[in-house]
Amino acid sequence: MGLDLGDLVTKLGKATSDYQSVVSINLFVALLCACIVIGHLLEENRWMNESITALLIGLCSGVVILLTTQGKSSHVLVFSEDLFFIYLLPPIIFNAGFQVKKKQFFRNFMTIVLFGAVGTLISFVIISLGAIGLFNKLDIGALEIGDYLAIGAIFSATDSVCTLQVLNQEETPLLYSLVFGEGVVNDATSVVLFNAIQNFDLVHTDALVLLKFVGNFLYLFATSTFLGAFAGLLSAYIIKKLYFGRHSTDREVALMILMAYLSYMLAELLDLSGILTVFFCGIVMSHYTWHNVTESSRITTKHAFATLSFIAEIFLFLYVGMDALDIEKWKFVSNSPGKSISLSAILLGLVLVGRAAFVFPLSLLSNLSKKSPNEKITFRQQVIIWWAGLMRGAVSIALAYNKFTRSGHTQQPSNAIMITSTITVVLFSTMVFGLLTKPLIRFLLPRRHLTRDLSMNSDPPSPKSFLASLLENEQGSGEGTGQNITRPTSLRMLLTAPARSVHHYWRKFDDAIMRPVFGGRGFVPVVPGSPTEATSNAWH
Amino acid sequence: MGLDLGDLVTKLGKATSDYQSVVSINLFVALLCACIVIGHLLEENRWMNESITALLIGLCSGVVILLTTQGKSSHVLVFSEDLFFIYLLPPIIFNAGFQVKKKQFFRNFMTIVLFGAVGTLISFVIISLGAIGLFNKLDIGALEIGDYLAIGAIFSATDSVCTLQVLNQEETPLLYSLVFGEGVVNDATSVVLFNAIQNFDLVHTDALVLLKFVGNFLYLFATSTFLGAFAGLLSAYIIKKLYFGRHSTDREVALMILMAYLSYMLAELLDLSGILTVFFCGIVMSHYTWHNVTESSRITTKHAFATLSFIAEIFLFLYVGMDALDIEKWKFVSNSPGKSISLSAILLGLVLVGRAAFVFPLSLLSNLSKKSPNEKITFRQQVIIWWAGLMRGAVSIALAYNKFTRSGHTQQPSNAIMITSTITVVLFSTMVFGLLTKPLIRFLLPRRHLTRDLSMNSDPPSPKSFLASLLENEQGSGEGTGQNITRPTSLRMLLTAPARSVHHYWRKFDDAIMRPVFGGRGFVPVVPGSPTEATSNAWH
Repeated sequence: MGLDLGDLVTKLGKATSDYQSVVSINLFVALLCACIVIGHLLEENRWMNESITALLIGLCSGVVILLTTQGKSSHVLVFSEDLFFIYLLPPIIFNAGFQVKKKQFFRNFMTIVLFGAVGTLISFVIISLGAIGLFNKLDIGALEIGDYLAIGAIFSATDSVCTLQVLNQEETPLLYSLVFGEGVVNDATSVVLFNAIQNFDLVHTDALVLLKFVGNFLYLFATSTFLGAFAGLLSAYIIKKLYFGRHSTDREVALMILMAYLSYMLAELLDLSGILTVFFCGIVMSHYTWHNVTESSRITTKHAFATLSFIAEIFLFLYVGMDALDIEKWKFVSNSPGKSISLSAILLGLVLVGRAAFVFPLSLLSNLSKKSPNEKITFRQQVIIWWAGLMRGAVSIALAYNKFTRSGHTQQPSNAIMITSTITVVLFSTMVFGLLTKPLIRFLLPRRHLTRDLSMNSDPPSPKSFLASLLENEQGSGEGTGQNITRPTSLRMLLTAPARSVHHYWRKFDDAIMRPVFGGRGFVPVVPGSPTEATSNAWH
Repeated sequence: MGLDLGDLVTKLGKATSDYQSVVSINLFVALLCACIVIGHLLEENRWMNESITALLIGLCSGVVILLTTQGKSSHVLVFSEDLFFIYLLPPIIFNAGFQVKKKQFFRNFMTIVLFGAVGTLISFVIISLGAIGLFNKLDIGALEIGDYLAIGAIFSATDSVCTLQVLNQEETPLLYSLVFGEGVVNDATSVVLFNAIQNFDLVHTDALVLLKFVGNFLYLFATSTFLGAFAGLLSAYIIKKLYFGRHSTDREVALMILMAYLSYMLAELLDLSGILTVFFCGIVMSHYTWHNVTESSRITTKHAFATLSFIAEIFLFLYVGMDALDIEKWKFVSNSPGKSISLSAILLGLVLVGRAAFVFPLSLLSNLSKKSPNEKITFRQQVIIWWAGLMRGAVSIALAYNKFTRSGHTQQPSNAIMITSTITVVLFSTMVFGLLTKPLIRFLLPRRHLTRDLSMNSDPPSPKSFLASLLENEQGSGEGTGQNITRPTSLRMLLTAPARSVHHYWRKFDDAIMRPVFGGRGFVPVVPGSPTEATSNAWH
């Protein structure tokens, strides 16, 4: 963690590095607590959400620190890519995979990949071309073709974290799985794109090189997914074979956390996409491993992963909010504020257009392939998908920092202006678009639409007894097994979707081969003295 | 985190700092997973425990890395005091406070403080004097009086983490609470002592300065405890007042984690003892806050804190094992191996004598104050207390690094030899004393003694249904309220200990003032729509 407290510390009297980090950690943890409490108090507010609260608190503390240090520094921790990609992103994405409603996700898998991969490419091309066409009128300094392509990749990365908080999985499961699933694939796509551009020979581009590029992308996608699934299955197998719960719940939970993290880091080590890997690891773990552990471990993992992800999200927004006021970056811009504003406006416009350019056509394409009218994406839903994916966040900032601070450390005017514009776009889109999303959903999809959209049994928002929620989790989380056919919801699904043959064969395969080996709902063998015996006695 | 992979990385082809950290994290996480799995497989073994497994795996991987890098490096992460004191120690100590059987702990509070504070001082004096007397025969270079005192403090710090794993709270609750409680107070005492020596003017010592020193120590003890209790009560009050569970379990858990961590860091910031603070914060949180949260949060916190602590412990031992082979430290020693061995032997002897010198006299003192023969510490138990506290661990290593590497970076022979001797003492005491502890307890306290020692309802080691264990937790964890009098165990306690008036008044005060304000078992008001309503419906 890079620490940069500078004057604040000197003023406080001591200047050792230990002392600096202790002060920073104290401040940061205290602010995190404040964010949680204030976010909780504002829960009822129809405009606010946790990320906006954290961003605002970050901005406010940035101002306070700026005033305290007489304009020298505005943040407690310098934004570091490592901190973001190594510590904050993995728990968020893993938890997303772990908690995602798998039925919805896999039913819409093709649409999600279409939006996430093809859509991001369309958005990337439009933003890059738009930047090339519009930036030269602004005279912001020398930008190369590689810079323009990087800008395309940076602003194609939607902020899935913020989107998660704006949409509600219970109220709008279809929209949630589409927008959020797209967000994960999109993050992965834009990071892969960005890295490819960095290592790409941009002078000698021909069809073969482009084909290689596409092939490489598909290879990355496949291997990353495979690695994640493999790590998940390995954890399921180990825990099932060794009956970890016999000795301790904590070992099971520790092993799940560590294996998930290992899959992410291994993907990063092998230059794959850690985001995709850890996402699929989460899905596989919730499908197999989660059913092999003791009941306490199930509750613990569900909530502990959500808590870790929650803390990482709040941390991130606080961090971005605080870092946004970093005075050094704004020094160069203060000479020409108009230029920075028009640049940000152009980028925001390109983001709006770039997203519209793929959401509506691709929705049409997706609707053509669906037979049942229930599954088609209505125009109102398309508008929400378009809108909910407009937010730009930490991935954009991390990529922008990577591109525009490494060479020359914001000393070059064109680099400095790109950084400040990225921050402006992120702040504006998160605050304004984010604030408007809740009312927009309420306006476009009134309550009766929301309930019609509910196609799975979901947790009602009211509090209820612990046992009831556990039982519901039991039913809601796994994919339906043979026993579930008797349940009306599953029956309805089978009736309304008889043609989903891929899913049907997968289920057969899952029941016949995967579950007996790796465990999973209803397929954990009862071994005397193992935790599953207790499970069976308790529930059946 | 200081990363020092050196040649390994260069050989692998890349040399960026990102890549280094990714490789290190991968290796380390993979080793952690291996430790968990192997530790689980060795669970039945009567000699091994998790810390010894982790130490051995650390040593083995150290050897492998040493061979791979052709003798240049043996570790993946350089041992850093910050990493230890800021990230690894807080979760371990907090969890210890959170899970400690409070009845046992507070009943033996005076004995624990006697052992932890007075005992550590006695041990410190004996080891310092012994070092002064015996070291000058070895000709290991110039050591000042401050160095000798530091050695006394370093080797007075028992390894409470390893002790925790050797003793079993369920089997031997009295011994566990004594040895472990002593360990926490001892860690705090030796760290405070060590820091006091560093800042102490050792030339002008008179009675007044010594009195000031004692006063300062008592002040630190009191303020640290108060800060911890305050943080715990604040979290209880916030969660009770704002009904966090109404919205989300994850927020409650996040707030508890963050407040506990904040209390530790705040104590460090204010130059108090973070160890004591976070320990008492854990106790207060399990007494009040834990009862104010939803049922899922209770299960989650119990297991999540234990898991975090478990991972930190394994991490620590792996780390120490790997670091022990660091070649640079051993270079200076290789010229005179005999000197290093005799130094380590002397230190081990002093540790044995220093501990014996306070355990037996102070046990006698403690027994004098107890009326009931059931509460007296038998001679066999005294031997176990003496033995179980002989292990030296990460605190000793961290303090030794602080003292002997800062000035001169192990270049001075006397510094290098002190570091290697510390590592030798830690490895030897953890492995040999640690390995012998389980058999020693079996020998001195056969099974029937163990069960006689059980004075509280405890979790049997066999697996059981989740509901049963939750209910048991409910009963076992809080201190008995009025309702509990009907339970036979509590009744027996009241009969055998009628004279414990302090505890009696505390309970009255707790029931009349503390619980109504801060919540706690049986005192959480039922508010419509709040999580406690669901609780009441589910359990009563």
